[in-house]
Amino acid sequence: MEFLSGVKPQTTLELKELQEESRLGSRVRVNGAVHSIRDMGEVAFVVLRKRGGILQCVLEEESSSVSVKTVREGQTVEAEGILERDERAPYGIELRVQEMRILSEPCKGMPLPVGKWKLNTSLEAKLNYRNASLRNIRERAKFRIQEGITRGFRDYLYGQGFTEIHTPKIGAKGAEGGSNIFKLDYFHRPAVLAQSPQLYKQMMVGVFDRVFETGPVFRAEKHNTKRHLNEYTSLDFEMGYIQSFEDIMAMETGFLQYMLQLLKEEYADELRILNLTLPKADRIPMVRFDRAKELVAEKYKRAIRNPFDLEPEEEHLIGTYFKEEYDADFVFVTHYPSKKRPFYAMDDPQDPRFTLSFDLLFRGLEITTGGQRIHDPKMLREKMEARDMGEEGLEQYLGAFEYGMPPHGGLGIGLERLTMMLVGEDNVRETTLFPRDLSRLEP
Amino acid sequence: MEFLSGVKPQTTLELKELQEESRLGSRVRVNGAVHSIRDMGEVAFVVLRKRGGILQCVLEEESSSVSVKTVREGQTVEAEGILERDERAPYGIELRVQEMRILSEPCKGMPLPVGKWKLNTSLEAKLNYRNASLRNIRERAKFRIQEGITRGFRDYLYGQGFTEIHTPKIGAKGAEGGSNIFKLDYFHRPAVLAQSPQLYKQMMVGVFDRVFETGPVFRAEKHNTKRHLNEYTSLDFEMGYIQSFEDIMAMETGFLQYMLQLLKEEYADELRILNLTLPKADRIPMVRFDRAKELVAEKYKRAIRNPFDLEPEEEHLIGTYFKEEYDADFVFVTHYPSKKRPFYAMDDPQDPRFTLSFDLLFRGLEITTGGQRIHDPKMLREKMEARDMGEEGLEQYLGAFEYGMPPHGGLGIGLERLTMMLVGEDNVRETTLFPRDLSRLEP
Repeated sequence: MEFLSGVKPQTTLELKELQEESRLGSRVRVNGAVHSIRDMGEVAFVVLRKRGGILQCVLEEESSSVSVKTVREGQTVEAEGILERDERAPYGIELRVQEMRILSEPCKGMPLPVGKWKLNTSLEAKLNYRNASLRNIRERAKFRIQEGITRGFRDYLYGQGFTEIHTPKIGAKGAEGGSNIFKLDYFHRPAVLAQSPQLYKQMMVGVFDRVFETGPVFRAEKHNTKRHLNEYTSLDFEMGYIQSFEDIMAMETGFLQYMLQLLKEEYADELRILNLTLPKADRIPMVRFDRAKELVAEKYKRAIRNPFDLEPEEEHLIGTYFKEEYDADFVFVTHYPSKKRPFYAMDDPQDPRFTLSFDLLFRGLEITTGGQRIHDPKMLREKMEARDMGEEGLEQYLGAFEYGMPPHGGLGIGLERLTMMLVGEDNVRETTLFPRDLSRLEP
Repeated sequence: MEFLSGVKPQTTLELKELQEESRLGSRVRVNGAVHSIRDMGEVAFVVLRKRGGILQCVLEEESSSVSVKTVREGQTVEAEGILERDERAPYGIELRVQEMRILSEPCKGMPLPVGKWKLNTSLEAKLNYRNASLRNIRERAKFRIQEGITRGFRDYLYGQGFTEIHTPKIGAKGAEGGSNIFKLDYFHRPAVLAQSPQLYKQMMVGVFDRVFETGPVFRAEKHNTKRHLNEYTSLDFEMGYIQSFEDIMAMETGFLQYMLQLLKEEYADELRILNLTLPKADRIPMVRFDRAKELVAEKYKRAIRNPFDLEPEEEHLIGTYFKEEYDADFVFVTHYPSKKRPFYAMDDPQDPRFTLSFDLLFRGLEITTGGQRIHDPKMLREKMEARDMGEEGLEQYLGAFEYGMPPHGGLGIGLERLTMMLVGEDNVRETTLFPRDLSRLEP
């Protein structure tokens, strides 16, 4: 009988290993995809794309058994040769190829110049040829940063006593109602796709005290903007036993600090590839909604049109204001009007026209909505009644409060949007592997 | 201006801190939910449910400002008192309460006896009162184990150079075809819910070499068994540059070893609560599909009815066989018949009636399906043609191969099913927070 006892050491080296000083001058074996070829006649430079970055390979007619004529972009290969220092090459190393074996062949040329450093192509073309465009080193790097954000979110919250949950995406009723719900047929019963894990994560506060989920959410919104998707990844948490809704913002601040540090340490290659400077999150200012509107109105000579609404232009100016006045990239705007928040939001006992809630703006764009929730079943029912909401489909949700629930609150972060802002893109589709919008259902 | 600079130290202690030797005899503050009450007259034992477990509190009429008459199951409270050793109490500690403040009140009694150690209730009742039943310590612990599995999967794969991806759950076409697809209306266009991230993760091998995803998948299967759900969490990975399909099984073996170790180290409390002994995964036997059938037929005197199919009963016996003969909890069954595998499965060049694929059985139940995939675009088209498949909706998928793709393969693990087997349950609904099946769309 044969047995498996785990991963065997690889016979090929990855970029991290190739950068070890001791490898220089020795014979090494690597694999990768042919990313670009520069044929200079007697010598050719073949760049291999590996998962960690790119490796420059040199093929010389006389010292190699391989002819550059057989090498084509898109092939995957295994190459052997001597590793040498070359300060002009990426990571200061290059492989002088002696042997090369072709692992697989493409049957078409690349539809986009993915081997170039910057893929100067329209977003439309990038999305139409998604599995080609993402092979560009810079395009790919954005999604490594996205990984770092998600990873940082989870790791930080594990450390803070949160439990990860998986809540259903198909349900009988939307979490927050409204018209932006995708409907489907579930064995001849009407069903909907989850707009958010909101009601489930609140229920689970009664079980685990602190919970989080990283998963897809679905919004059937008909507007086609640079900031909206119809399916996106939401980083959600909810925490019990809070003293005030500041605890939630403090937890998010802690996450941002942890995540930015993780990116610096573990994603340094990608930060360099994208030439990114990370924002600061050591001190995040906190300003009331109404006060933020006043500050912006005063400084930028702008009339306040509606005291209970924040226009995108105003949001943007709040970002500008706090950058100019406090050198802050992030700002918490607190106490949003009750009318603009869902039924489960806790009203401010000082002034119930406003809520104990917040948005986090990052360079003037909302990337988080959060706040304290109502935990008292009577108060919850009163607010639902005041909004003419029925209880149908919410029996289990209400049950959680009837059986007792601690004071709690939480938030949701749009992953693709946070990635977009962090890598300096201006369209959320740039930081979504396969975006879903009004016109895109494929690939 | 006010600023937030991260999480402030909590004024209340968690169970880990309460177990520190130096806390004994000192005054501490804790919070929690009233889990059960045993009123003995002059003294009452109030068990608090905290996220890490339970804490025994003692209320004595004379030394406490709190009357036990005001304490009710389901309240959430903040208590202060002196921490004492008591070997009979959980963790060997108890809190002698001096003051207690009520944070929130329930308005109904618990519908199930969740304060008992074992919740001896029907599965039906547990699911009907999900937000109550999960408050039982043992019910809750299963989902902490589930967290450990997912966490172990991700952490192990990060360490092995995998990139985490998020692929869309709404698409134009199902990954593997068939009738078990949920359909929905996407802005007046027909759309479906993803049965698996299969085609996307394969495409992403061409970009990141190694990828994984942990997310929901949707199966509109009409059978109602103890092992099936219509929505579940799939742990998926796909890896490029494999030498053989054994590499995939070796990676899974490495994951299982890492995950079991993580559970031992970080989830020891939950293992104790559930009284679990973890299985061994240091050496996992590997047996061909046809050979496994023979072994079982010989040993258990069972005729082979169909050489190209594995019945659940046979699967179960394979598990028994390898437990008896090799003391193995896991077994890889390899070389499944081509007819039983999807179009993208790589046929065995030695005998194309079989594939370079495998299932992992855990105590006789399939918890993983995986294998090598076709990476040559011509071979892929030929197999699709042989199966009378059209290319519509698969253009982008085929494109990835046309632009070049390394030899690769991967697998998918059903999270709820693996949890079920690990914690020794016999119905997958026991290890699903909110199961979705033919009859359950709520809560």
